[in-house]
Amino acid sequence: MSPLIEQKIRASFAAQTMMQTLGATLDHLEEGVAEISAPILPGSLQQQGFAHAALTFAIGDSAAGYASLSLMPEDHEVLTTEMKINLLAPGKGDRLVARGRVIKPGRRLVIVQSDVFAVAEGQERHIALLTGTMMPVCLT
Amino acid sequence: MSPLIEQKIRASFAAQTMMQTLGATLDHLEEGVAEISAPILPGSLQQQGFAHAALTFAIGDSAAGYASLSLMPEDHEVLTTEMKINLLAPGKGDRLVARGRVIKPGRRLVIVQSDVFAVAEGQERHIALLTGTMMPVCLT
Amino acid sequence: MSPLIEQKIRASFAAQTMMQTLGATLDHLEEGVAEISAPILPGSLQQQGFAHAALTFAIGDSAAGYASLSLMPEDHEVLTTEMKINLLAPGKGDRLVARGRVIKPGRRLVIVQSDVFAVAEGQERHIALLTGTMMPVCLT
Amino acid sequence: MSPLIEQKIRASFAAQTMMQTLGATLDHLEEGVAEISAPILPGSLQQQGFAHAALTFAIGDSAAGYASLSLMPEDHEVLTTEMKINLLAPGKGDRLVARGRVIKPGRRLVIVQSDVFAVAEGQERHIALLTGTMMPVCLT
Repeated sequence: MSPLIEQKIRASFAAQTMMQTLGATLDHLEEGVAEISAPILPGSLQQQGFAHAALTFAIGDSAAGYASLSLMPEDHEVLTTEMKINLLAPGKGDRLVARGRVIKPGRRLVIVQSDVFAVAEGQERHIALLTGTMMPVCLT
Repeated sequence: MSPLIEQKIRASFAAQTMMQTLGATLDHLEEGVAEISAPILPGSLQQQGFAHAALTFAIGDSAAGYASLSLMPEDHEVLTTEMKINLLAPGKGDRLVARGRVIKPGRRLVIVQSDVFAVAEGQERHIALLTGTMMPVCLT
Repeated sequence: MSPLIEQKIRASFAAQTMMQTLGATLDHLEEGVAEISAPILPGSLQQQGFAHAALTFAIGDSAAGYASLSLMPEDHEVLTTEMKINLLAPGKGDRLVARGRVIKPGRRLVIVQSDVFAVAEGQERHIALLTGTMMPVCLT
Repeated sequence: MSPLIEQKIRASFAAQTMMQTLGATLDHLEEGVAEISAPILPGSLQQQGFAHAALTFAIGDSAAGYASLSLMPEDHEVLTTEMKINLLAPGKGDRLVARGRVIKPGRRLVIVQSDVFAVAEGQERHIALLTGTMMPVCLT
């Protein structure tokens, strides 16, 4: 990936205040792949005390978005048009890790997928599968 | 709705710390219907300064969940098993409102839908459609 | 709707040989709305003898597609990019009816929904909900 | 897989008259995996002369269903509760092949995925990704 693309992605991530609210970090980036993780903060819980599905969605969707953006020209942005999340297990543990990847790139639409894992005592458990569509938007 | 069911739902909502983080409130509740709204806080934004899709998802999913729970016996909880969000327009404005409803109740699965609107200068704009499945879980 | 648009839609429907295989007919068409029905033929069954989900999908998806096409300029086609089907009840009865409608029109993407009903002894039962995305394609 | 389970699956496939209408065959079966293919028959086309999305859906959904059934006790059936299809490319070629697999088994719900490929001149092209949920049903 060109340094300019990586810089653009890191600037975009930094501009998402929701990522800061959730404590999320962009941990890895390569062409067509992105990894985002977040601690399960005291303010990120659902009613049973596990990670809220909105946290799972937030990092899964963003990881898929940045995986897409890594394949786009510099003057493009991507927007999620639809995203489906299948929840596989409760988000128990210390943190969540989302790994997004591009299934099918395209000029008009990009099909993406993310897997989200809960990490407890160093063990990862697969807790969600997201599949969705990103729409490239030219900014110039 | 029985007062006990309403009390159970309000206690569940209060226990979701994510709802507090996002500033969300449970504004309306009737059998098979729930409405949740949230301001677009400075900490709830995506990279362009609009409401983050995770905020839209959070209140849309919860509204659908509580719509389902309103039809369940007192000793039941519901869990989201899958939820698809179609994003229709950017979340511009002051706040978001999610209206969830039950499409098809069931003992094993409940099919739900939510519409999310962005409110700007008193005008609502339809920004997202969520369709999903809730699974009843007996707690006793 | 202009007669040219209606003519284009009816020609498109007639060109779908799958619709003939399934015995489907395009019963109603107005701007943003389309209705397609099909008998539950002996060759359209799943393993328990009810209507196969592929029949439900076929007419639900096509009804949503033609609802979209009714709002497009004459030189446009639409393609399904994604469609989710929630199955609510078994397809028992004599025939299925799908009613598609446009939720949100757009130049780049059109968000659609279809409800499918099984008709038994003159009574309709809601058996499926489809939500999806159509992509307009200019043919010229 | 036990011979009884395989026998049950083959009997179920044979009972789906829609599979015969579409010319589909169950080509491979192992624990958690199933492969179904079908020729693109003259009666299985959409308006542009390519494979109809209902054909893609039919074999993708069934492959995922039988992948699930391969992990179930003998007295269980599975039903699709929801299935999302992302269409990646047109279904051009001689035949379609669907490969279904279980992502997450479960007593109450099974999360599944299928990839569908179009085969043209011996080359496979990925044309669709399906993700969905199967519900086990005990028959006794």
